[in-house]
Amino acid sequence: MTRIIVDVMLKPEILDPQGQAVKGALARLGLDGVADVRQGKQFVIDVDPAPDASTIEHLAGTLLSNPVIEDYRWRVDDDAESVGAAASTGASA
Amino acid sequence: MTRIIVDVMLKPEILDPQGQAVKGALARLGLDGVADVRQGKQFVIDVDPAPDASTIEHLAGTLLSNPVIEDYRWRVDDDAESVGAAASTGASA
Repeated sequence: MTRIIVDVMLKPEILDPQGQAVKGALARLGLDGVADVRQGKQFVIDVDPAPDASTIEHLAGTLLSNPVIEDYRWRVDDDAESVGAAASTGASA
Repeated sequence: MTRIIVDVMLKPEILDPQGQAVKGALARLGLDGVADVRQGKQFVIDVDPAPDASTIEHLAGTLLSNPVIEDYRWRVDDDAESVGAAASTGASA
Protein backbone atom coordinates (compact mmCIF):
# COMPACT_ATOMS: atom_id res chain seq x y z
CA MET A 1 0.00 0.00 0.00
CA THR A 2 1.32 3.42 -1.01
CA ARG A 3 0.36 6.56 0.82
CA ILE A 4 0.27 9.71 -1.32
CA ILE A 5 -0.08 13.06 0.39
CA VAL A 6 -1.29 16.04 -1.63
CA ASP A 7 -1.16 19.51 -0.09
CA VAL A 8 -3.33 22.15 -1.74
CA MET A 9 -2.82 25.79 -0.89
CA LEU A 10 -4.25 29.03 -2.25
CA LYS A 11 -1.78 30.81 -4.50
CA PRO A 12 0.17 33.53 -2.69
CA GLU A 13 -1.65 36.30 -4.53
CA ILE A 14 -5.11 34.99 -3.56
CA LEU A 15 -6.66 36.39 -0.40
CA ASP A 16 -6.96 33.79 2.37
CA PRO A 17 -9.55 35.01 4.90
CA GLN A 18 -9.37 31.77 6.92
CA GLY A 19 -5.63 32.16 7.30
CA GLN A 20 -6.06 35.79 8.31
CA ALA A 21 -8.59 34.78 10.95
CA VAL A 22 -6.14 32.25 12.37
CA LYS A 23 -3.39 34.88 12.31
CA GLY A 24 -5.52 37.21 14.39
CA ALA A 25 -6.43 34.44 16.81
CA LEU A 26 -2.79 33.44 17.28
CA ALA A 27 -1.94 37.02 18.18
CA ARG A 28 -4.81 37.23 20.65
CA LEU A 29 -3.61 33.98 22.25
CA GLY A 30 -0.24 35.56 22.88
CA LEU A 31 1.92 34.33 20.00
CA ASP A 32 4.11 37.24 18.97
CA GLY A 33 5.66 37.89 15.61
CA VAL A 34 3.25 36.05 13.33
CA ALA A 35 3.91 37.43 9.86
CA ASP A 36 1.48 35.32 7.85
CA VAL A 37 -0.82 32.30 8.08
CA ARG A 38 -2.17 30.38 5.13
CA GLN A 39 -4.75 27.60 5.44
CA GLY A 40 -4.91 24.83 2.89
CA LYS A 41 -6.16 21.30 2.39
CA GLN A 42 -4.38 18.00 2.69
CA PHE A 43 -5.44 14.77 1.01
CA VAL A 44 -4.06 11.44 2.24
CA ILE A 45 -4.62 8.74 -0.37
CA ASP A 46 -3.90 5.06 0.29
CA VAL A 47 -3.66 3.22 -3.00
CA ASP A 48 -2.28 -0.05 -4.32
CA PRO A 49 -0.77 -0.35 -6.88
CA ALA A 50 0.98 3.01 -6.76
CA PRO A 51 0.05 5.26 -9.68
CA ASP A 52 2.84 6.86 -11.70
CA ALA A 53 3.85 10.46 -11.18
CA SER A 54 2.04 11.78 -14.23
CA THR A 55 -1.24 10.26 -13.00
CA ILE A 56 -0.78 11.84 -9.60
CA GLU A 57 0.01 15.19 -11.21
CA HIS A 58 -3.08 14.97 -13.37
CA LEU A 59 -5.42 14.12 -10.50
CA ALA A 60 -3.87 16.69 -8.16
CA GLY A 61 -4.18 19.40 -10.80
CA THR A 62 -7.77 18.65 -11.76
CA LEU A 63 -9.81 16.89 -9.06
CA LEU A 64 -7.91 17.88 -5.93
CA SER A 65 -7.07 21.50 -6.71
CA ASN A 66 -8.33 24.40 -8.77
CA PRO A 67 -5.30 25.49 -10.78
CA VAL A 68 -6.70 28.98 -11.27
CA ILE A 69 -6.42 29.84 -7.59
CA GLU A 70 -4.51 26.99 -5.94
CA ASP A 71 -1.07 25.39 -5.99
CA TYR A 72 -0.48 21.77 -5.02
CA ARG A 73 2.45 19.78 -3.77
CA TRP A 74 2.52 16.03 -3.43
CA ARG A 75 4.79 13.40 -1.98
CA VAL A 76 4.83 9.69 -1.30
CA ASP A 77 4.86 9.05 2.43
CA ASP A 78 7.39 6.32 3.10
CA ASP A 79 6.48 6.39 6.76
CA ALA A 80 2.85 5.45 6.20
CA GLU A 81 2.85 2.66 8.77
CA SER A 82 3.31 5.07 11.62
CA VAL A 83 0.95 7.80 10.48
CA GLY A 84 -1.55 8.55 13.19
CA ALA A 85 0.81 7.27 15.86
CA ALA A 86 3.88 9.44 15.52
CA ALA A 87 5.59 11.99 13.35
CA SER A 88 9.11 13.13 12.71
CA THR A 89 8.80 16.39 14.57
CA GLY A 90 5.61 16.37 16.58
CA ALA A 91 2.24 14.69 16.83
CA SER A 92 -0.81 14.72 18.98
CA ALA A 93 -1.39 11.82 21.33
CA MET B 1 11.59 33.77 9.74
CA THR B 2 10.46 30.28 10.76
CA ARG B 3 7.80 28.41 8.86
CA ILE B 4 5.72 26.01 10.95
CA ILE B 5 3.41 23.59 9.19
CA VAL B 6 0.56 22.03 11.14
CA ASP B 7 -1.45 19.21 9.56
CA VAL B 8 -4.84 18.52 11.09
CA MET B 9 -6.69 15.32 10.22
CA LEU B 10 -9.86 13.70 11.48
CA LYS B 11 -9.10 10.80 13.81
CA PRO B 12 -9.22 7.42 12.04
CA GLU B 13 -12.43 6.42 13.80
CA ILE B 14 -14.27 9.59 12.71
CA LEU B 15 -16.25 9.41 9.48
CA ASP B 16 -14.78 11.59 6.73
CA PRO B 17 -17.47 12.23 4.11
CA GLN B 18 -15.25 14.63 2.13
CA GLY B 19 -12.55 11.98 1.89
CA GLN B 20 -15.11 9.40 0.82
CA ALA B 21 -16.38 11.74 -1.89
CA VAL B 22 -12.83 12.17 -3.21
CA LYS B 23 -12.31 8.40 -3.07
CA GLY B 24 -15.36 7.87 -5.25
CA ALA B 25 -14.27 10.58 -7.67
CA LEU B 26 -10.77 9.10 -8.01
CA ALA B 27 -12.30 5.75 -8.91
CA ARG B 28 -14.61 7.36 -11.49
CA LEU B 29 -11.60 9.13 -13.00
CA GLY B 30 -9.92 5.79 -13.54
CA LEU B 31 -7.55 5.45 -10.59
CA ASP B 32 -7.68 1.82 -9.52
CA GLY B 33 -7.00 0.40 -6.10
CA VAL B 34 -7.81 3.37 -3.89
CA ALA B 35 -8.27 1.91 -0.41
CA ASP B 36 -8.93 5.08 1.53
CA VAL B 37 -8.84 8.87 1.26
CA ARG B 38 -8.81 11.28 4.17
CA GLN B 39 -9.10 15.03 3.82
CA GLY B 40 -7.59 17.34 6.38
CA LYS B 41 -6.40 20.89 6.87
CA GLN B 42 -2.94 22.37 6.68
CA PHE B 43 -1.82 25.59 8.36
CA VAL B 44 1.38 27.32 7.22
CA ILE B 45 2.53 29.80 9.85
CA ASP B 46 5.40 32.24 9.27
CA VAL B 47 6.62 33.57 12.59
CA ASP B 48 9.68 35.28 13.99
CA PRO B 49 10.98 34.60 16.60
CA ALA B 50 10.24 30.88 16.50
CA PRO B 51 8.01 29.72 19.36
CA ASP B 52 9.15 26.77 21.45
CA ALA B 53 7.72 23.31 20.91
CA SER B 54 5.38 23.44 23.89
CA THR B 55 3.81 26.64 22.58
CA ILE B 56 3.29 25.08 19.17
CA GLU B 57 1.78 21.97 20.76
CA HIS B 58 -0.59 24.10 22.82
CA LEU B 59 -1.78 26.19 19.89
CA ALA B 60 -2.10 23.20 17.57
CA GLY B 61 -4.10 21.30 20.16
CA THR B 62 -6.48 24.12 21.01
CA LEU B 63 -6.89 26.74 18.27
CA LEU B 64 -5.94 24.75 15.19
CA SER B 65 -7.53 21.39 15.94
CA ASN B 66 -10.40 19.95 17.93
CA PRO B 67 -8.77 17.22 20.01
CA VAL B 68 -12.06 15.36 20.41
CA ILE B 69 -12.24 14.49 16.74
CA GLU B 70 -8.91 15.51 15.20
CA ASP B 71 -5.22 14.63 15.37
CA TYR B 72 -2.51 17.07 14.48
CA ARG B 73 1.09 16.80 13.36
CA TRP B 74 3.49 19.70 13.06
CA ARG B 75 6.93 20.33 11.73
CA VAL B 76 9.29 23.18 11.08
CA ASP B 77 9.84 23.63 7.38
CA ASP B 78 13.55 24.17 6.81
CA ASP B 79 12.90 24.67 3.12
CA ALA B 80 10.64 27.66 3.57
CA GLU B 81 12.43 29.82 1.04
CA SER B 82 11.42 27.61 -1.82
CA VAL B 83 7.83 26.95 -0.81
CA GLY B 84 5.51 27.83 -3.63
CA ALA B 85 8.21 27.31 -6.20
CA ALA B 86 9.23 23.70 -5.73
CA ALA B 87 8.90 20.67 -3.50
CA SER B 88 10.92 17.60 -2.71
CA THR B 89 8.75 15.26 -4.73
CA GLY B 90 6.42 17.28 -6.88
CA ALA B 91 4.80 20.67 -7.20
CA SER B 92 2.46 22.54 -9.46
CA ALA B 93 3.90 25.13 -11.76
